[in-house]
Amino acid sequence: MKNISILGSTGSIGKQALEVVREYPDIFNIVALSTNKNRRLLLEQINEFQPEIAVITDAEDAAWLKLHIQTRTKVYNGMNGLVEIATLPSADIVLNALVGSIGLTPSYKTVESGKTLALANKESLVVGGELIMNTAKKHNVDVLPVDSEHSAIFQCLRGENINSLTSVILTASGGPFRNLSKKEIEFSHPSKALKHPNWSMGQKITIDSATMMNKGLEVIEAKWLFDLNAEQIKVLVHPESIIHSMVEFSDTSVIAQLGWPDMRIPIQFALTYPERIYLKTDKLDLASISQLNFEKVDTKRFPNLQLAFDAMEKGGTMPCVLNSANEELVPLYIEGIVSFYQMSEIIDKIMNCHQSVTYSSIQELQEIETWVKRQISEYI
Amino acid sequence: MKNISILGSTGSIGKQALEVVREYPDIFNIVALSTNKNRRLLLEQINEFQPEIAVITDAEDAAWLKLHIQTRTKVYNGMNGLVEIATLPSADIVLNALVGSIGLTPSYKTVESGKTLALANKESLVVGGELIMNTAKKHNVDVLPVDSEHSAIFQCLRGENINSLTSVILTASGGPFRNLSKKEIEFSHPSKALKHPNWSMGQKITIDSATMMNKGLEVIEAKWLFDLNAEQIKVLVHPESIIHSMVEFSDTSVIAQLGWPDMRIPIQFALTYPERIYLKTDKLDLASISQLNFEKVDTKRFPNLQLAFDAMEKGGTMPCVLNSANEELVPLYIEGIVSFYQMSEIIDKIMNCHQSVTYSSIQELQEIETWVKRQISEYI
Repeated sequence: MKNISILGSTGSIGKQALEVVREYPDIFNIVALSTNKNRRLLLEQINEFQPEIAVITDAEDAAWLKLHIQTRTKVYNGMNGLVEIATLPSADIVLNALVGSIGLTPSYKTVESGKTLALANKESLVVGGELIMNTAKKHNVDVLPVDSEHSAIFQCLRGENINSLTSVILTASGGPFRNLSKKEIEFSHPSKALKHPNWSMGQKITIDSATMMNKGLEVIEAKWLFDLNAEQIKVLVHPESIIHSMVEFSDTSVIAQLGWPDMRIPIQFALTYPERIYLKTDKLDLASISQLNFEKVDTKRFPNLQLAFDAMEKGGTMPCVLNSANEELVPLYIEGIVSFYQMSEIIDKIMNCHQSVTYSSIQELQEIETWVKRQISEYI
Repeated sequence: MKNISILGSTGSIGKQALEVVREYPDIFNIVALSTNKNRRLLLEQINEFQPEIAVITDAEDAAWLKLHIQTRTKVYNGMNGLVEIATLPSADIVLNALVGSIGLTPSYKTVESGKTLALANKESLVVGGELIMNTAKKHNVDVLPVDSEHSAIFQCLRGENINSLTSVILTASGGPFRNLSKKEIEFSHPSKALKHPNWSMGQKITIDSATMMNKGLEVIEAKWLFDLNAEQIKVLVHPESIIHSMVEFSDTSVIAQLGWPDMRIPIQFALTYPERIYLKTDKLDLASISQLNFEKVDTKRFPNLQLAFDAMEKGGTMPCVLNSANEELVPLYIEGIVSFYQMSEIIDKIMNCHQSVTYSSIQELQEIETWVKRQISEYI
């Protein structure tokens, strides 16, 4: 029996993780759940899975939950609550499916307390990759990728000698604006950016897919997960999202992982690792798909991807600047306050104003985030 | 330093294996070479690689070689010579790149003498899979696939638990007749069957690709190499021959191996296994390939593939009947004596005349081959 905590259980990844858990009551046991604001769904989840603890952001929502729950679940709120989940003694594995850099501290606390981290919160590694991975190494803890691309790479590397790896090739659907010109992209309504061709995901990541910032963040995440340098990470546009990513070895052999665009596959693999178990879903049928396409990435139309590569090469605190600027700007884009390419211009400007330094604590990163927020409010 | 013997060093696989060896004189050492008839090329190879022994089929050619060689190489001829190579004490690994069921005895002798068998001669397993694999297991010897499809599967299975494997998917280019109707295929000149769209190979295997008997033989080979049952083996037409094969697991995750159609990749992997080393060739570039296509297999137009599945399911001596009938018929097809579909009809008839039995020795299999030859000479 594996005891599982889920940070962000009412989001897209969280709900699909609970679908996986629901299928195997003899294998998985939920010990903690959390949500930002969706108290009604969290209440349902608590009643179904009866975790030891549950966490919601606001104190008021926590009070509401306490009134309504019919289980012995303890309810906490805010960041303290998330840290309670990350350090809960009974948990074997913590699935971090939070959205944004809010996930950093819980990721850190998870690995620091010696628990396996199943990571869907890519910002943890984008912002604090060095800190998280060093802490994980120190405590001999696995960081298991849940992002479909990183899970693919992780699967492709099984049984291989990492020294013969020459590069990883992250595939990208290209998002809803793949075939549009720069002008068409600039004048598209944000609602179009919210319609991903292949994956059903949350709003933030869907916009990041349209700008390809999502791929940029994944590039930085890959760097930390697999200990790569910039030249070893490539991005390839693959509109069908069937090949989830690939690895290339010194003998030019390429290993790829394929599947339907179904997040339950990487979620379940992280939860059952190192084993695989049966997943009740259709088998991949390439004859019915008939064709897989591939294109070079165009960083002229998608400058956010280039900015992410730049931030990764600068290293230190620069990816934190990139990510927090992007986190601030995406809601402004959805609201129509900034345009598609203004997002890139502002991120670029803020990165240019920042002198990248090394960091050793989460607090230093948080101070940078505060500075970025101030900068952005000045631009708007 | 790995000491390597090559059975069939003047054929397509043998020559490419020597290309690989030539690049790494510090890693590989050639101890034995053989050819069927190409005495001039074998002489060149002997002078370059200075093996301990060399083998050629005819005694007369052996005498010619002895006259011309400038090294201390001992020269043998015939099957005794091939067995000398298979059992040579100094060899660590024997690459069997012979064509046809003549490769069975050397494969058997290789594993029986405790040497790693790098197998390009699929007929060894088609005809005598049970015997070879049981003997290999008994002597704790690796049988490493060299066929690109089986090498792909072998690479995809690294680090995986074989119990979670649901199926292997062998890709097939579809050959030169992929897009022709049954009528067009029947009336195509054999010279067209000799033009493979992707791979440069010997005559026998090229015709087998056109009839898809090659894929059928590979299906049976896969059964033995990976201990599969018939339902676990699927064939998928993939005209570009970039995905060399795939494996599917219980969680519906599919792992694939990709590369240019270059036999040096699987040859080198078998020779360096479990390590990978640098191969001087272009990296795979999917953006330049741009598109990969997939189709269902059509056993109506390519009945040989169905016959192979049938023979595999019958088991015992039936695959030996299938293979030896095919070996007899391919040269008759090239000469224009039998037509494309007459090959299938004759194989089917002979299989129907044979009552499959279990076997325990190579001699029993050879008796069946003799019977098949007699049957065919009666039909023609």
